[in-house]
Amino acid sequence: MKLEILPVPGIGDVTEGDDLAALIATAAPWLRDGDVLVVTSKIVSKAEGRLVDVPADGPERLAARDEVLEAETARVVASRGATRIVQTHHGFVMASAGIDASNVDKTRLVLLPEDPDASARTLRAALRDRYDLDVAVIISDTMGRPWRNGLTDVALGVAGMPAIRDHRGEIDPYGNELQLTEIAVVDELAGAGELIKGKCDQVPVAVVRGYPGVARADDGDGARALVRDAELDLFSLGTAEATAAGLRAAATLADGPGSAPADPAAVDRAVAAVADVVAPGTVFTHVTNAEVRAGLVATVPGWPAQASGLVLGAPPTPVDQPDLVRFGADLQRLRTALAAEGIPSALLPPPDGSTAGGALAL
Amino acid sequence: MKLEILPVPGIGDVTEGDDLAALIATAAPWLRDGDVLVVTSKIVSKAEGRLVDVPADGPERLAARDEVLEAETARVVASRGATRIVQTHHGFVMASAGIDASNVDKTRLVLLPEDPDASARTLRAALRDRYDLDVAVIISDTMGRPWRNGLTDVALGVAGMPAIRDHRGEIDPYGNELQLTEIAVVDELAGAGELIKGKCDQVPVAVVRGYPGVARADDGDGARALVRDAELDLFSLGTAEATAAGLRAAATLADGPGSAPADPAAVDRAVAAVADVVAPGTVFTHVTNAEVRAGLVATVPGWPAQASGLVLGAPPTPVDQPDLVRFGADLQRLRTALAAEGIPSALLPPPDGSTAGGALAL
Repeated sequence: MKLEILPVPGIGDVTEGDDLAALIATAAPWLRDGDVLVVTSKIVSKAEGRLVDVPADGPERLAARDEVLEAETARVVASRGATRIVQTHHGFVMASAGIDASNVDKTRLVLLPEDPDASARTLRAALRDRYDLDVAVIISDTMGRPWRNGLTDVALGVAGMPAIRDHRGEIDPYGNELQLTEIAVVDELAGAGELIKGKCDQVPVAVVRGYPGVARADDGDGARALVRDAELDLFSLGTAEATAAGLRAAATLADGPGSAPADPAAVDRAVAAVADVVAPGTVFTHVTNAEVRAGLVATVPGWPAQASGLVLGAPPTPVDQPDLVRFGADLQRLRTALAAEGIPSALLPPPDGSTAGGALAL
Repeated sequence: MKLEILPVPGIGDVTEGDDLAALIATAAPWLRDGDVLVVTSKIVSKAEGRLVDVPADGPERLAARDEVLEAETARVVASRGATRIVQTHHGFVMASAGIDASNVDKTRLVLLPEDPDASARTLRAALRDRYDLDVAVIISDTMGRPWRNGLTDVALGVAGMPAIRDHRGEIDPYGNELQLTEIAVVDELAGAGELIKGKCDQVPVAVVRGYPGVARADDGDGARALVRDAELDLFSLGTAEATAAGLRAAATLADGPGSAPADPAAVDRAVAAVADVVAPGTVFTHVTNAEVRAGLVATVPGWPAQASGLVLGAPPTPVDQPDLVRFGADLQRLRTALAAEGIPSALLPPPDGSTAGGALAL
């Protein structure tokens, strides 16, 4: 077994309405059943007319580009300076929603194909029906990724093969069951195709020959199978965006004593975290669930009996009005530190007329 | 031009001290100058003795594995359940620091090579010096990534070619200068190699033939060039970890009136963000820098004259002690919401005896 990666030169400039199947079949009369076609998404976009007219330069161009980006964006994932990492309506997370100004007139922007899996299926069907070729089609584009410099080509759309090869359940020669081995083979094939395609669109199509399991009746699930749900993703937001979300969460922290006893070590960490920023002389005392139930704090009227634990706080004495405002702010700091430990709490101001100090139900 | 991807079967089981150059040259006597060898990191690790003895099962195995993981970890990037995404001492961000229990005895774990670039250079030099072969060597491993399901093979170490092919500055046929086109070709080559290597180590080496620009005198910068500095990375922490960091930042928010005037729209957003959670009747009023300079708030003694703006807060009336504690907590909420907008602030409790309410310098 060996693989070959072959360029398809001579396709030339692609414009709206062009028949990609005809262009490819003519440029590569040597195509065979079982070949994998790796097609640069840009020529698919051009053939499908996914182009937007924009001014050639100036602030008007930037404004028009921003408008296009907003339309292509399902949600912003991260931004810094002029960089926008967004999730597209397809679900792909990419810089600038994959909008591209290269290899096109200065007055146009190229958008991603509207449904790259459908584009792949259409091209595959045309090659099968009109040229009697049973191939797989990958629509590819160039993407960055976190943590590693440099970009690679990956698959936006696929037809004629599964996006993922699943080794789970296989047994290695040592008797271990393989885990975590769902391989995104179409991304590897897209990257392999990039190795012989130029960046200047002279070679917008590559062919991978010899990859097993291609010639098959059905189109498969498409590249949609590669899109991970944001809820399942440990990196659904940029670090700065998630940090700001934490600050916003702190600002709007809901009152909510927990029903389960809080981990005493976590409470201690939270108290320690704010020790240096609260007013000098402020004392926080963790009263455990058992002590609450034993009636130790039941003497303070107006505090909930159902609390599974309390942190009692006492402001520095003597207590005057500015001290109480500061004490309230410090209790809120403690609540936030508890939230960072996953511990819900509620602000319990001292009963009117009391100098007992505030407390937090956990 | 075409590329070929060829498997190197017959290498067999690799154990500590094995001569990889000899094993590969014997298994692939057809190697030529200019070939790219894609070598699965596991056989490099095994030859280099990067193995750790662990119990075959039970809690002792888990404890031993945790200890190994901690030693291989430079910092934890994200965790959920049993999943740990960490940055290794090499700088790679990977699940479980690349520690692997497959294709090895049940009583051993395989660690990544200590210095995969050095491993690649050593293997390349051995093939050159002893077998008169001028090849490039890529040490590859399988990694997951955010946002996309499925794993791909990427490069951990490289010798004999640059890790990145840089198109920046090239002009496309439309006269546009290409941007953002540093391609991580060694990752694409590693992925291409994976396509014909099995997951069960029967074929731990692939050869990519025909890739231009390989046979060259120097080893190049290695895969280290692919490691992005955490400070430059928009995803240096997991979303949950960054959110918790935001909560911790809120808990320890430093006092600090800004020197530049705060954006009034951002102040309004912060005030609006906490409107529903502060005590009913609380009023926040943004006093701009100009108004401060005009002396509008200078009548309140003890508040800094250098403040570039203020949010005046007034608690509901009549004011009693619990109200002041709650008011302090609400001012801290507002400060946190301001911080989420990037606006520093400081708590300014009302002067003693005053019922003017607290204020925040911006």
